[in-house]
Amino acid sequence: MPDPMNAPDPIDAIDDLLLDDLVKGFPGGHAPVRLGDVGKQRWNLLREDLPLPLAVLKRDVLDANGRWMARFLKATGCVIAPHGKTTMSPQLFKRQLADGAWAITVATVSQLQVCRRFGIKRILLANQLIGKQAIGEVVRELVRDPAFEFYALIDSIEGVAMLAAEAKRQGLARPVNLLLEGGIEGGRAGCRNREQALAVARAIKAEAPHLALVGVEGFEGLIRGASTAENEARVAAFLDFLAAIAADCRREGLFAPGRVILSAGGSAYYDMAAERLAAAGISEAMVVLRSGCYLTQDSTAYRKAFERVRERSPLAAGLEGGLMPALELWTYVQSRPEPGRLILSAGKRDVSYDLDLPVPLAWYRPGVGRSASPLAPGHEVVQLNDQHAHVKVPAQSPLRPGDMVALGISHPCTTFDKWQAMFLVDDAYDIVGAIRTFF
Amino acid sequence: MPDPMNAPDPIDAIDDLLLDDLVKGFPGGHAPVRLGDVGKQRWNLLREDLPLPLAVLKRDVLDANGRWMARFLKATGCVIAPHGKTTMSPQLFKRQLADGAWAITVATVSQLQVCRRFGIKRILLANQLIGKQAIGEVVRELVRDPAFEFYALIDSIEGVAMLAAEAKRQGLARPVNLLLEGGIEGGRAGCRNREQALAVARAIKAEAPHLALVGVEGFEGLIRGASTAENEARVAAFLDFLAAIAADCRREGLFAPGRVILSAGGSAYYDMAAERLAAAGISEAMVVLRSGCYLTQDSTAYRKAFERVRERSPLAAGLEGGLMPALELWTYVQSRPEPGRLILSAGKRDVSYDLDLPVPLAWYRPGVGRSASPLAPGHEVVQLNDQHAHVKVPAQSPLRPGDMVALGISHPCTTFDKWQAMFLVDDAYDIVGAIRTFF
Repeated sequence: MPDPMNAPDPIDAIDDLLLDDLVKGFPGGHAPVRLGDVGKQRWNLLREDLPLPLAVLKRDVLDANGRWMARFLKATGCVIAPHGKTTMSPQLFKRQLADGAWAITVATVSQLQVCRRFGIKRILLANQLIGKQAIGEVVRELVRDPAFEFYALIDSIEGVAMLAAEAKRQGLARPVNLLLEGGIEGGRAGCRNREQALAVARAIKAEAPHLALVGVEGFEGLIRGASTAENEARVAAFLDFLAAIAADCRREGLFAPGRVILSAGGSAYYDMAAERLAAAGISEAMVVLRSGCYLTQDSTAYRKAFERVRERSPLAAGLEGGLMPALELWTYVQSRPEPGRLILSAGKRDVSYDLDLPVPLAWYRPGVGRSASPLAPGHEVVQLNDQHAHVKVPAQSPLRPGDMVALGISHPCTTFDKWQAMFLVDDAYDIVGAIRTFF
Repeated sequence: MPDPMNAPDPIDAIDDLLLDDLVKGFPGGHAPVRLGDVGKQRWNLLREDLPLPLAVLKRDVLDANGRWMARFLKATGCVIAPHGKTTMSPQLFKRQLADGAWAITVATVSQLQVCRRFGIKRILLANQLIGKQAIGEVVRELVRDPAFEFYALIDSIEGVAMLAAEAKRQGLARPVNLLLEGGIEGGRAGCRNREQALAVARAIKAEAPHLALVGVEGFEGLIRGASTAENEARVAAFLDFLAAIAADCRREGLFAPGRVILSAGGSAYYDMAAERLAAAGISEAMVVLRSGCYLTQDSTAYRKAFERVRERSPLAAGLEGGLMPALELWTYVQSRPEPGRLILSAGKRDVSYDLDLPVPLAWYRPGVGRSASPLAPGHEVVQLNDQHAHVKVPAQSPLRPGDMVALGISHPCTTFDKWQAMFLVDDAYDIVGAIRTFF
């Protein structure tokens, strides 16, 4: 029984949560503020109304990135189930669903619990269900809520047996939808060859009506070669391997009746996934991409990946606009102990450092002028400690203790998880809203 | 006006917070549980009562580590202001204060806000106060609560000016206590030589009675050399440099009257800090160590550091017991796609990876036997993704999807910040309690 269209959205309840000075970035001594009222406080980042470090999201860039991805999907005929693990922010999920996202992807059952609490109806778990609590919880939710639509990956006979047993034990009256996972030698999960994949697919079919094979999935984002060309050749071969698994399953009648889902495409190769899976010759297929990072982009790793998407894909290059970094981390110059070196008041607790170190973007001296200025070349983050960044600077750099420095990030996933709340800003760095995360 | 001894401890209010299935590690579909009642749920980790991944703290090891550090402090005559940034758990701060800690150290004013909310009375901010909000908040707290005792670092004339201006603006009737920070060339914050340090010290003195120089501080933990011997020689030289700064300030009468604080000692060289600062010849000195990691230790970086402490320090080696790892991360085997490779259900979102990758410690097959077994040599975590660990295993490894694997960590700070709550376990992995973190 689906909710009526005008039912209150559970995600809107997040607006009623209070932010207080236990939340990093909230000003000390200020009374708690209802999250939905953050935009009414007339706070401005450059006016130092909030303590730093502070992670902010540029509202207009989020909007533009959402529109760009919608154009890309429309042009390719694919759908997206954006990976929710990136932001774990139901308010951003709502924005993605409003942009047309088909589902939200999650990595774990804890993440699924967050989605379910906030009323997400269609969820793709991009992992095999493992463990008593995880399997039990998903089957309970499927029993409890007929409007809950769920998909999980599977790559093993053991996984089939555990899941089927729990579906039977709870008397689940509909099948658990499964996507057969393909993987590569030396890679992450997933069947390594078509024989293994077929064996798992047959085991699923043997568990009908408790389980249903509804598609094939793989994650190409970890594939590495000696060069860009080799990376891309290997990604292409992997996508073809997924298509071959799907063709095998179809030939043998192992899919449940109806649409077949083909899913791949993280945040680096979604153009290739869109193109090759659509061309796989499976007429009843729906191609589901899963990029988590397109919404905020970043200033390094995914910026480069997007440049490469546009080089590879005339379709992507021909679309209006493009993805831009929406996430910035603002810090203070904490110390300038040497002419060529300064220390910023942010570290591993505040910003991702797994793919690349953050990059200085701009600076502002409180009270001087109305906007931030770009930083001259030669300012480079060379080390992060837990709570500090070490920056190499030209001896003539104007920066001194108390100046503000904006950092661009690389890898949104490992920055979001360092913030319970992030503030939304406009171009003047007025704080226009806030989101909560649930990690 | 200090609280009466029997006033309710604000930290105990954390027991009244509810944990629910928005918190990673809480079982889906279970009613919310008051944090203080977690131990009454009769949950057991090995019985799969909680979803994995799950970070757990061994209660008895926490107790033993606290006792060991108390013995070390008693033997050396030093005090400790444990770095609260490690755990950001007021419940663990309470335990540390009960063990005799002199103060809690923090890195940022957001962390100070958490401490103040939970009633911590003596705080050492191991950074220079920078920024309108941070400086304003500390001075407001000092004005508001005469029982609040506060110390901050300082390494610049700009820092002196900004802090004095705000103390005057708010009419603060007592001085802000400052520790002059010494640093090393190429290192983090801190004056690089005695002349710089003296210039800052004189600037502080010139701002009496608004500011008071009460000690000298440095952080030796980032010092690196080509060998252990060179590291330690450089650490020793740095500690002597701090002592020399203190002697200079004393000679020139730059300290405020009374006790002088000498502070250094992170989690790797606290024995050297204790020994050398105590021997600095400043009779009115109190030596304040600041280790954050001793309470939980770890299985790699700080395990090795502690072995070295005992090699270096006959005093430490002669104490009963020793520091042991209290923190474990439990995961499932998510997939075994190749005989020599398996994937665990935990990644960068769950465990530190900045100093070393986690190490497999033990495994358990649900329902089989009553306790976990050690893992044979050859099981090695070789890569972490956001939500997965890649593990190289011997072909004859018994592990299969659904088995549980415990990982030991390296660097507690960057594991704690990935968990809103951590469960306490006894030796049988019964869940006996929980702590909240506030990052």
